[in-house]
Amino acid sequence: MEFYQTTIQLPSYPRGFHLITDHIVDNFPATRKLSKGMLQVFLQHTSAGLTINENADPSVRSDFETFFNDLVPEDYPEFVHTYEGPDDMPAHIKGSLVGFELNIPITNGKLNLGTWQGIYLCEYRNNGGRRKLVLTAFGI
Amino acid sequence: MEFYQTTIQLPSYPRGFHLITDHIVDNFPATRKLSKGMLQVFLQHTSAGLTINENADPSVRSDFETFFNDLVPEDYPEFVHTYEGPDDMPAHIKGSLVGFELNIPITNGKLNLGTWQGIYLCEYRNNGGRRKLVLTAFGI
Amino acid sequence: MEFYQTTIQLPSYPRGFHLITDHIVDNFPATRKLSKGMLQVFLQHTSAGLTINENADPSVRSDFETFFNDLVPEDYPEFVHTYEGPDDMPAHIKGSLVGFELNIPITNGKLNLGTWQGIYLCEYRNNGGRRKLVLTAFGI
Repeated sequence: MEFYQTTIQLPSYPRGFHLITDHIVDNFPATRKLSKGMLQVFLQHTSAGLTINENADPSVRSDFETFFNDLVPEDYPEFVHTYEGPDDMPAHIKGSLVGFELNIPITNGKLNLGTWQGIYLCEYRNNGGRRKLVLTAFGI
Repeated sequence: MEFYQTTIQLPSYPRGFHLITDHIVDNFPATRKLSKGMLQVFLQHTSAGLTINENADPSVRSDFETFFNDLVPEDYPEFVHTYEGPDDMPAHIKGSLVGFELNIPITNGKLNLGTWQGIYLCEYRNNGGRRKLVLTAFGI
Repeated sequence: MEFYQTTIQLPSYPRGFHLITDHIVDNFPATRKLSKGMLQVFLQHTSAGLTINENADPSVRSDFETFFNDLVPEDYPEFVHTYEGPDDMPAHIKGSLVGFELNIPITNGKLNLGTWQGIYLCEYRNNGGRRKLVLTAFGI
């Protein structure tokens, strides 16, 4: 059983949903050594998130931005934790709704994603800066 | 440390929430070999999902269908990605809200679920077809 | 490769969102033995949940309670599964929206959480009682 772990920092992304599958694979070559295994991508933040969704049409990603802004509105009148601006508390809520980690099977040295699946960084803040990921891979 | 992996295809389910715990266990006997371990169930799609919820009263599953259709309405006027019909974009959003993977502890050869927990396939499309799962189990 | 597993029971928490990071680490010393590894926290219930969010300002946790009660209202007229009271079905829905498991990297014997990240128990019931967690850790 092999066990690999590293930390990477993503480039700064604007608010919205962004495909980062290639960035992760390119920066963690250990995944290629595993014939059967698991990759974990863990985001060390509470105001951004990770999910999987369609890797083709960019309108899926812009529809995500539109819908999540409606679901957790910045002008929600009952939020108390608004010190860092109106995008602060909605970012925390979206974070816990969508999640902060992905666990993806590895088969024959590659992520065993479905044909249409890609990894999204969900940037909920207006100026989130460079986000840190802990990448862990293990298997045989 | 043992490491097992396989891919299975579920039968075609109608739109809604369906218990698939037995189907998974019956089709992945490797889990019985582990005294302490982990099962991962990974769905290779972006318009269906996986979750855990109550395994007894079917009204929980029909209430899920009712509530999620209200939360992400098919007639949401701002969706752009609607090429495959009104159930297309809501399915992607529900997918990322609920998730595509489950990681369940194995103890003494069995899934260590709570008494009332079962695995749900969440079929968000009207005609989703047969969904593929990558099953991974590891442990000692 | 080391593999550890145990079950713990949390104290009874009132409805709301509660930081339990220290409780988990203190009750599972096996995590300290791993230089690179993974901790899984699995909740054996369907009407409570687990998430990660801000570990500092308590108003984040009270804003969670406010927002989630609005998102999944107890007086939602179409719920059928209401036998155990108005907090019953909303608890199941919140459960699947937020999730029941966390997988957190371990580095040098410590949870490799971000600076502001803490583990939340999400108690959605008015009288949820003592919740059970299966804790699994593995790595090298």
